Amino acid sequence: MNFIPCNPEFASIVQASFEQQGLMKTIGATLDRIEPGAVDISAPHRDNLTQQQGFLHAAAITAIADSACGYAALSLMPAGSEVLTIEFKVNLLRPAAGTRFVAEGRVVKPGKTITVSRADVFAYTDEVPVLIATLLATMIAQAG
Amino acid sequence: MNFIPCNPEFASIVQASFEQQGLMKTIGATLDRIEPGAVDISAPHRDNLTQQQGFLHAAAITAIADSACGYAALSLMPAGSEVLTIEFKVNLLRPAAGTRFVAEGRVVKPGKTITVSRADVFAYTDEVPVLIATLLATMIAQAG
Amino acid sequence: MNFIPCNPEFASIVQASFEQQGLMKTIGATLDRIEPGAVDISAPHRDNLTQQQGFLHAAAITAIADSACGYAALSLMPAGSEVLTIEFKVNLLRPAAGTRFVAEGRVVKPGKTITVSRADVFAYTDEVPVLIATLLATMIAQAG
Amino acid sequence: MNFIPCNPEFASIVQASFEQQGLMKTIGATLDRIEPGAVDISAPHRDNLTQQQGFLHAAAITAIADSACGYAALSLMPAGSEVLTIEFKVNLLRPAAGTRFVAEGRVVKPGKTITVSRADVFAYTDEVPVLIATLLATMIAQAG
Repeated sequence: MNFIPCNPEFASIVQASFEQQGLMKTIGATLDRIEPGAVDISAPHRDNLTQQQGFLHAAAITAIADSACGYAALSLMPAGSEVLTIEFKVNLLRPAAGTRFVAEGRVVKPGKTITVSRADVFAYTDEVPVLIATLLATMIAQAG
Repeated sequence: MNFIPCNPEFASIVQASFEQQGLMKTIGATLDRIEPGAVDISAPHRDNLTQQQGFLHAAAITAIADSACGYAALSLMPAGSEVLTIEFKVNLLRPAAGTRFVAEGRVVKPGKTITVSRADVFAYTDEVPVLIATLLATMIAQAG
Repeated sequence: MNFIPCNPEFASIVQASFEQQGLMKTIGATLDRIEPGAVDISAPHRDNLTQQQGFLHAAAITAIADSACGYAALSLMPAGSEVLTIEFKVNLLRPAAGTRFVAEGRVVKPGKTITVSRADVFAYTDEVPVLIATLLATMIAQAG
Repeated sequence: MNFIPCNPEFASIVQASFEQQGLMKTIGATLDRIEPGAVDISAPHRDNLTQQQGFLHAAAITAIADSACGYAALSLMPAGSEVLTIEFKVNLLRPAAGTRFVAEGRVVKPGKTITVSRADVFAYTDEVPVLIATLLATMIAQAG
């Protein structure tokens, strides 16, 4: 879907908010795409972020998926807005086995107050992406 | 609710699995309670785990809540089982403002294959707990 | 939890909205309890509302659970408000086998705009209630 | 995505199960598409299935969406299987205003035990479809 951003500065707004997240630095996440209603965030495998079987922990996967959803929503909000996650649901489809993980956040339904977004997360080892999780989230806009 | 564990070693099974999670160490989480169908996990505020407003990131909150749900489920499973999260939904009710956060995981419905658990997460600053999140999860048992 | 309603007419507001729902009549649902932040709705088994195995359809169970959550939220809203469901997640824990089903909706976190509610649904055959479903919902208040 | 059904009789299996659902008849639902991993179910507006504002009740919308997800999953299961919904989450994006509603159920991740499906629901008045809901569900296969 093609969305028209109401704030032409949307990309720098998203970038600035992302850089304030201590956790994104700690997990090594990067912002790979910022378009109106579409934000991708990726993170590498890290040995200090594993679950009990040695795969990347679901918390790291949901962190990049939730953030990609939130920033996809924020990209369509008016200047001065902040975005907060009200809730999300995530299905963990396969083990997070790979060297890099990419969360593709997309707005499903924008709104003045409530925006609904979805993210699919893919694992990369060589070049073949494998869908490992899907997340559906409800975001709320707050005046900054 | 009172559950009867089918594996008398349930507490050491939970403890051993918890200790294998690199992420739990990284966020400073501890196992505070292991009873049949009831597991509490807590974590402190850490400046390298924040979201854009300086509060503890939802990813850390959901990590301890998801793990508390999973280990509450594992505590009722037969010897040799592993537990995996199929999916969860979390409502973030208030900002994660506090010095310590406690996730109370409780089994809602145990089962041979599928167990449903719930966790409430409380923030502590002084002594007054504040409910900041609630998570509802579906777990699956795997033969080890 | 004890909530203080801001509209003393909350019970008649809930009752009036409930009576406007054509679907509630069609499934034979009744409002059994209206307290601040707590609403119970029940419905009988009906042969024209079954799923493929002859049990009451999940749609009827979630209908009373969602409505109980919504009206629990509405009971705490200011005069002139309407309540809408933004989203819910439901776990279907056991088959809906019974003669009557009671959904107990309870507010988890009230708010000016967003209210989070939860409902447990119990099946009754003789006198023993059996937990068959649990639902976690996000509601939004609208000026009427 | 293209899925290969393991049971060549999948369409008649889905049809037969659908016809046993009393609720589907009561809401006037029809099976409009049965392909491997993809099932569409539609239903008309009915005045006895409304919510308090006169729109089609979310219960009817989620009923067709949940069933479309379940039958999309069943279409990929081996002969003799039954499908049950473990849980779903639905976002209600817009009022269910229209004369007809179509739920498009698609498998996201098939599995021997667990299948994850998604459904988008569109409202039709004239010819323009409007996305009114999206549902993400976890299904389990049972030997018949």
